[in-house]
Amino acid sequence: MKRWNGWGDHATHPPVPDAARTFLHQLLGPGHPPRDATLHEVTARVPASRLPEHPLVQRDADTRVRYARGQSLPDLIALRSGEGLVFPDGVAHPERPEDVQTLLQYAHTHAATVVPYGGGTSVAGHVNPAAGARPVLTISLERLSALLTLDEASRLATFGAGVRGPDLEAALRAQGYTLGHFPQSFEYSTLGGWVATRSSGQQSLRYGRIEAMFAGGTLITPRGPLTLPPYPASAAGPDLRQLVLGSEGRLGILTDVTVRVHPLPDTERFEAAFFPDWASAHDATRALAQSGAPLSMLRLSTPTETHTTLTLAGHPRATRALETYLATRGVRSDKCLLLYGLTGPRDTVQHAAHTAARVIAAHQGVRVYTPLGRAWHKGRFAAPYLRNSLWDAGYAVDTLETATTWDRVDRTLNAVEHALRRGLDAYGERVHAYTHLSHVYPSGCSIYTTYVFRLAEDAAATLRRWSALKGAASEALVREGATISHQHGVGRDHAPYLPAEKGALGMSALHALTRTFDPDGLMNPGVLLEGDHA
Amino acid sequence: MKRWNGWGDHATHPPVPDAARTFLHQLLGPGHPPRDATLHEVTARVPASRLPEHPLVQRDADTRVRYARGQSLPDLIALRSGEGLVFPDGVAHPERPEDVQTLLQYAHTHAATVVPYGGGTSVAGHVNPAAGARPVLTISLERLSALLTLDEASRLATFGAGVRGPDLEAALRAQGYTLGHFPQSFEYSTLGGWVATRSSGQQSLRYGRIEAMFAGGTLITPRGPLTLPPYPASAAGPDLRQLVLGSEGRLGILTDVTVRVHPLPDTERFEAAFFPDWASAHDATRALAQSGAPLSMLRLSTPTETHTTLTLAGHPRATRALETYLATRGVRSDKCLLLYGLTGPRDTVQHAAHTAARVIAAHQGVRVYTPLGRAWHKGRFAAPYLRNSLWDAGYAVDTLETATTWDRVDRTLNAVEHALRRGLDAYGERVHAYTHLSHVYPSGCSIYTTYVFRLAEDAAATLRRWSALKGAASEALVREGATISHQHGVGRDHAPYLPAEKGALGMSALHALTRTFDPDGLMNPGVLLEGDHA
Repeated sequence: MKRWNGWGDHATHPPVPDAARTFLHQLLGPGHPPRDATLHEVTARVPASRLPEHPLVQRDADTRVRYARGQSLPDLIALRSGEGLVFPDGVAHPERPEDVQTLLQYAHTHAATVVPYGGGTSVAGHVNPAAGARPVLTISLERLSALLTLDEASRLATFGAGVRGPDLEAALRAQGYTLGHFPQSFEYSTLGGWVATRSSGQQSLRYGRIEAMFAGGTLITPRGPLTLPPYPASAAGPDLRQLVLGSEGRLGILTDVTVRVHPLPDTERFEAAFFPDWASAHDATRALAQSGAPLSMLRLSTPTETHTTLTLAGHPRATRALETYLATRGVRSDKCLLLYGLTGPRDTVQHAAHTAARVIAAHQGVRVYTPLGRAWHKGRFAAPYLRNSLWDAGYAVDTLETATTWDRVDRTLNAVEHALRRGLDAYGERVHAYTHLSHVYPSGCSIYTTYVFRLAEDAAATLRRWSALKGAASEALVREGATISHQHGVGRDHAPYLPAEKGALGMSALHALTRTFDPDGLMNPGVLLEGDHA
Repeated sequence: MKRWNGWGDHATHPPVPDAARTFLHQLLGPGHPPRDATLHEVTARVPASRLPEHPLVQRDADTRVRYARGQSLPDLIALRSGEGLVFPDGVAHPERPEDVQTLLQYAHTHAATVVPYGGGTSVAGHVNPAAGARPVLTISLERLSALLTLDEASRLATFGAGVRGPDLEAALRAQGYTLGHFPQSFEYSTLGGWVATRSSGQQSLRYGRIEAMFAGGTLITPRGPLTLPPYPASAAGPDLRQLVLGSEGRLGILTDVTVRVHPLPDTERFEAAFFPDWASAHDATRALAQSGAPLSMLRLSTPTETHTTLTLAGHPRATRALETYLATRGVRSDKCLLLYGLTGPRDTVQHAAHTAARVIAAHQGVRVYTPLGRAWHKGRFAAPYLRNSLWDAGYAVDTLETATTWDRVDRTLNAVEHALRRGLDAYGERVHAYTHLSHVYPSGCSIYTTYVFRLAEDAAATLRRWSALKGAASEALVREGATISHQHGVGRDHAPYLPAEKGALGMSALHALTRTFDPDGLMNPGVLLEGDHA
């Protein structure tokens, strides 16, 4: 069963390896496990619903707790402690697209605001009801999840927007196809959510971001439906799909989505190489990204992340053997791990593998035949489970990410890590921060930083620590001119930083769009755009 | 010197081969060359300018004639006859981005509307001033054309938006790079125009559409500048670049544009194959488009276009020899010509060539070692010159284009050709129509149809013939659910058909954007969106 106060299924609870515990103790000091609130305690605090009865709307306390938050660190803090929660007044599960229009009308009638809910995996506050005078109706799309049509000639599949990653891939696999979208949230996140937040999957290098997959669909808005036809391309004015991509529930609710699919690949494997230092590793990764070689993934860890990954994996003997071998090849303490994916028809994969080997060798890289690539693939969706376990050990883990052009990658990465490492100086606390580059493009890449710090004495104090870190890192991104999000979206947490990147005129344009589709301000207020219709 | 009343340079005037003349005579009847108006006659009819003097604005009659029209067939009819022309009241050539803001202020002060002008190559009425009470200021970007920066690490180049294709490629080639954008209008069209109209070049299969190249830039609007940073990717809400792409001068004027560039390819060649019939040719083209093979172009002609191309080329002896050879391989009168491009690093090209050979053979295709591919490459920008010559012979040529998904390609193609072939029945005139597919995608392709008909006794009657044909074909596209334009844009000619594809709500969104950037309705009214701020 799905956890109500943390990531994933109850049955999955990986232990923190001893080596990891020792490592964090040394870096940050001992962790103090917090006392969590029970579901019973939290349920007892849910106030009466302000919405009237409706056959499509559940108003019981248990349901309202389960849809109160997403999966950000502030969400985890609130759910574990039971503090600071705001509950939706009702949760609806439409079964047909027409139900969505009915529910928007119901919300309008009762002056409610609407939170569209896919898998609830947001790490930026997309699904959190705001406290306020208006009741909140959360509309979950989970029952709109069928494979509706598959056009094999055009390689287009249409699904109900609430379909989760594993169900979508299973339905396509049965017909010989794949979408190829594998964000870390894959187990629970949904197709509609991917589109609404401009999601990017781990194999974006082969399959593209969700923008490249999203061919068309239907958005139900307070002013009626917007139909987006699945043209392969068009010069007929601005592309309306691009308004829906990243609209984060502000314009309406996607009920069906047409995506471009691919035949299942003949071959797929993930390989590993180490570089002697960051400069050679960074240059090799850029060269591969710009080579046009048909790789399916590139993921490069800094020396700190490489060291952290090898330590937390908890296989000290195997790691020592690997390090001894690498030392003979000139790769020592500043080593950087590159994982790369090879996916596709056999001859394409061979061509990609040759290019990769050539570029890696030209940059002093050493390819290693360890299970690291396989282990990454096997554990690719597991990191959020470890967050649960580390919480129990008294440590908070969060991630943040951005993207910038190659000429600015190093300075942006350093600015973010510096802001995080010094971010709790005022509290006398240390922060462990480490980074990888993934989602590479010819013109730049994403920068993904993980940071770990100790839980404080209570939830409010832990939240203050997080706010200090998140604020310092976000300001560093703005200062460096990098985007506030490459893949997590804006939500509530990044909304204050959006005007710096869109400009005053750009913000006016986005507000004008929300006014057009949602003149009464029903849809997800406070998400994406702060404040009301400006 | 550039022609004032037709395509291209005066010095280039290809003769119509005898074979072509005979062919058209047989199909359509004899052509009757029209009498053209002289520049002197047209200049004498230019009314006094309604704009006051300004150091940046030219108001002489000669200049105003040269900026009155683009390159559509109605534009040619108007310029050749001197009838139905509306002239801008002034033409400005800003030399700095600040001049553009100054000129928008000047236009606002004098209640003028503004036509942004790149290369004047529009075939859909983008640059035509409308008759009306308000004076019209045309702003030509041609002096904003420098290479401003080249970031080799990120492979990003920033140009003044008015740079023309050949100058852009020359500036990049000097540094070892190419953009790879080669629309048929390449000689005169500009970077800013490509972005504003969502242009697509002949090698879009390798380099992508302009959407994929456009990384960022500056749009000067009546409400000030909008700066678009060149992020490699972002999940920070809707992508504002996508509002500018296809905005056709309604939101503002691009002054600088940052594009993603590529190293010059090691290798480039264009090859040819013939298929015995349309079904096998179509299936092979789809299979190649979906194979992921790194080809740089695919262009497939129907049997009618294949026959027309071989006849108009005017090499009857070489054609007969080719046809004799093809007949021995089972390829006869329904033959279809496929041209394909191989561009890139040597090993990538080899990989692509192998895949192409395999797929072509699997579909009964016959590769031929004729100069057809080379001839296509050499003459790739020449077709518009032939239009001038055919006009002089008494024939009008126009093209129209769309895109749709693979499952609908055949029926859409047939519907358009049928509408054109029967379109002048009421006039007792025949129409020769033929089609190729180019710009292929995994989910569909563009459909590009050329149609030829006889000029009527006067300009008004010729324009009526064109209107009948254009209307019938456009209505067919709407009925078939295909986009009204894959690469030419909307302009004035396609604007009536846009609501069918964007929907009422989509149109409201586009109007809301124009109101945001241009509250007083200065910018290119009537282009893209018919009517005023709805």
